[in-house]
Amino acid sequence: MRVLGVDPGTIRMGFGVVDDGGETPSAIDFGAITASERSPIGERLLLLYQRLNEIVRRYHPEVLAVEQPFINKNPRSALAIGRAQAVAILVAAANGVAVHEYTPAQVKQRVASYGASSKEQVQEMVRLQLGLTEVPEPDDAADALAIALCHIGETRFGQLVERQAKG
Amino acid sequence: MRVLGVDPGTIRMGFGVVDDGGETPSAIDFGAITASERSPIGERLLLLYQRLNEIVRRYHPEVLAVEQPFINKNPRSALAIGRAQAVAILVAAANGVAVHEYTPAQVKQRVASYGASSKEQVQEMVRLQLGLTEVPEPDDAADALAIALCHIGETRFGQLVERQAKG
Repeated sequence: MRVLGVDPGTIRMGFGVVDDGGETPSAIDFGAITASERSPIGERLLLLYQRLNEIVRRYHPEVLAVEQPFINKNPRSALAIGRAQAVAILVAAANGVAVHEYTPAQVKQRVASYGASSKEQVQEMVRLQLGLTEVPEPDDAADALAIALCHIGETRFGQLVERQAKG
Repeated sequence: MRVLGVDPGTIRMGFGVVDDGGETPSAIDFGAITASERSPIGERLLLLYQRLNEIVRRYHPEVLAVEQPFINKNPRSALAIGRAQAVAILVAAANGVAVHEYTPAQVKQRVASYGASSKEQVQEMVRLQLGLTEVPEPDDAADALAIALCHIGETRFGQLVERQAKG
């Protein structure tokens, strides 16, 4: 299974492509798409859409996993995250790729086995799980890889439960 | 000038096409695009994108005016509105159409001359300004027409100020 993790932002959008073929998952590509802060919103969203679309067409992921942030206090940032998520969701839908959403707590729980882990702990676990020599940069890319690993962990867990239920 | 007003929602997206050619503005088309509440978010956003894209290609508006809601209390609805706005903004950007955002207070001020007008007052003013026999339905369509009229009002006001400044 190939998963594209996306950390949504309207200025910078992190992405991470992870394969779950062998014993351990492996990072195929990761990075961040950056739009100019001074561009009009239309240009920015279109650039993010086009670049993310290129990534989907290059790597053909089966799933796009996107962060669904914990929303409490800041409605203005919720609006911006909603816009960035929509870009990722539209790219997925236009390419027939399934979309899964995960909260930061789910990502931390799956990747670092603890829902209240620090950002640094999660990044270190991303590095270890993917067998990388250094923590992926920028942060948005590390977050995107964590979201992809979260989906892989959820899927493996689901399969395990299913096998055990069947005896 | 032809303006496409959009009232953004991820279930129902109101639209209204208004021409500002003659003495008074005229409604060319209006309505609401409705996605199934039970569809996955990807299908929903893609449907809204495709239908709105058809409207832009049919009517070739010069401007897409979208509501930028007053955001205070409900971050969850802010996220959903952000997603719906992104669909409209992406359609505009992909077709080279300029995007303008207006708050509900701006729309009320421009269309009903009073920032705290009721929804009914605004709808009645939309009906009068467009010379319609009945208030446009559904509400989302009336709201979208109000947003288009707001942009036309803003533009006329700007031109008036400019002419007066030149003497």
